[in-house]
Amino acid sequence: MILKETVSDIGERALIKMASSIYKEHNNSVDLTDDCAIIPIADEYILSSSDMISEKTHVPHGMTPWQIGWFTTAINLSDIAAKGGNPVGILLSVGMPPTYPVSSFLDLIKGASSCATRYNTSIIGGDTKENDHLVISGTALGRVHKDFFMSRKGVQSDDVIAVTGTLGKAAAGFHSLKNQKKSGEINALCEPNPRIIEGKKLAETGLVHSCMDLSDGLSSSLYQLAELNHVGFEIQKEKLPISKELLVISSQDPTVDELYLSLHYGGDYELLFTASEKDISLFKKKLDEINVPLTVIGKVISGKEAVFICDSNENNEILPNLGYEHFTNK
Amino acid sequence: MILKETVSDIGERALIKMASSIYKEHNNSVDLTDDCAIIPIADEYILSSSDMISEKTHVPHGMTPWQIGWFTTAINLSDIAAKGGNPVGILLSVGMPPTYPVSSFLDLIKGASSCATRYNTSIIGGDTKENDHLVISGTALGRVHKDFFMSRKGVQSDDVIAVTGTLGKAAAGFHSLKNQKKSGEINALCEPNPRIIEGKKLAETGLVHSCMDLSDGLSSSLYQLAELNHVGFEIQKEKLPISKELLVISSQDPTVDELYLSLHYGGDYELLFTASEKDISLFKKKLDEINVPLTVIGKVISGKEAVFICDSNENNEILPNLGYEHFTNK
Repeated sequence: MILKETVSDIGERALIKMASSIYKEHNNSVDLTDDCAIIPIADEYILSSSDMISEKTHVPHGMTPWQIGWFTTAINLSDIAAKGGNPVGILLSVGMPPTYPVSSFLDLIKGASSCATRYNTSIIGGDTKENDHLVISGTALGRVHKDFFMSRKGVQSDDVIAVTGTLGKAAAGFHSLKNQKKSGEINALCEPNPRIIEGKKLAETGLVHSCMDLSDGLSSSLYQLAELNHVGFEIQKEKLPISKELLVISSQDPTVDELYLSLHYGGDYELLFTASEKDISLFKKKLDEINVPLTVIGKVISGKEAVFICDSNENNEILPNLGYEHFTNK
Repeated sequence: MILKETVSDIGERALIKMASSIYKEHNNSVDLTDDCAIIPIADEYILSSSDMISEKTHVPHGMTPWQIGWFTTAINLSDIAAKGGNPVGILLSVGMPPTYPVSSFLDLIKGASSCATRYNTSIIGGDTKENDHLVISGTALGRVHKDFFMSRKGVQSDDVIAVTGTLGKAAAGFHSLKNQKKSGEINALCEPNPRIIEGKKLAETGLVHSCMDLSDGLSSSLYQLAELNHVGFEIQKEKLPISKELLVISSQDPTVDELYLSLHYGGDYELLFTASEKDISLFKKKLDEINVPLTVIGKVISGKEAVFICDSNENNEILPNLGYEHFTNK
């Protein structure tokens, strides 16, 4: 009986589906399944996306206020990147306790502003309010020509699936932070770089069929794309572009499973997209210009909405959907 | 020494000024002084504004989840109204504990969606996340033709200052809620009606010189407008359009000071604007069509950025700035 259920009984994605169906009762064109909401204006879409983070549940211990500011801005910009958009502004609302130091607040603001500037945009508004602990909500705004908008929907049956950059950087950063190492990997976790330029370069070809960012981890993202497009995916294990930072850590610590972390740990903020195999060389050329690798990791398969992982001996097994989901125990 | 200060030592407005100067270092055109941020596109501005509310500090005891949803949406829309904008979408991010009932979450979503629908727009995106207690951040998006945008800046030296509707409705609602009365006044507090239609009607005349909404109370708003425009105001005590709900309550309870509450209690979400006296009859005619009163409450004065209140005997005294400000003890 729904009345007795708590939000942790059903998890974030079920909550969003239920909210979505309420919004749709009022306006049938509402679609919460993409990274951004879109508002058509002339031949463009205005893109908008909100992400909230809470000190208690989303911020690894050891992250500085400057990094919290950068992080919040970056994860919001990542949603604009995934749609091929040009960022045009960020709104940043900060809830904090009355005892929060002014110097920490200013560091947070500087981190946020530095990230916005790095991606050629600005913090243009927001709010500050009292809260028991630090909670930050960001909204990123962007623009994209209608012809270049990359939706999550649009996977074609003979598409391949590809990913920018490498996987497991954030997992490596979390491992280093947990072990109190001062290392460059921590930046990948705490100061992610949204793929704004990469997203625009891919979008402007007009050849991408579907795209999303990898905030929740590869397996979760693949399942979301599969469900939305009513397709399955087959991923090649040996093709996964595991980050060298994670490989170094796993070579030193046998408890670190680099394959598991690359498949299921979130926070890499890479772009995951599908397109025709014939167009991959063009995408690679475009991203080569900015020294960003691009890897085809698998292909679309018909049949059920599931994801399989295949090794070099062609052993094919189902990939569990283990990415992070709020309100669940995953 | 700033390093030892906490945010409660300096208050919300000083924090926003400090944040603003950091953002301006990166982009000199950033302006956080208005109700909305603006992004120019062709002959329009895209308007955006974020407001965060926390169950612990902003929600009166007794407010239902449905009302919390309506309230968050309404206060965000009020910022679009104050600029003369047409709302085009709301993003709603909800932080809540894992134990939060699904039924309460759905009621909150229904309240938010009902408010959006009432003002001819929709919830188009958002986020749900774990938090210790309920915290909601909304972002309202709107559009307005550049010629019709009503800025907070632009007060002219011979302007009068006027307000839509009545003052003290929210204060009356709070009194009723506190005394556990079931009365219509509570709706004014918990389910405010942003002045979207009124804002558009005023804006489309092209004759408004400055405008803001009354979220923080009249005295606070007057001081904000005075500081921003380097002017003073003289308000006529007997002209204040005190709501009849508040007058009824104060007639029954001698501890209720209707003048004090009309001047300093926030939450009425009326529009406060300045214009030439000669244009007031046109504004009144426009708002008469939708049965909304409009009252000239005073005029601009030169000299220092202060607000005076004048009684019918022409006794003139300074109006204290007692509106609500976060992180202070006001």
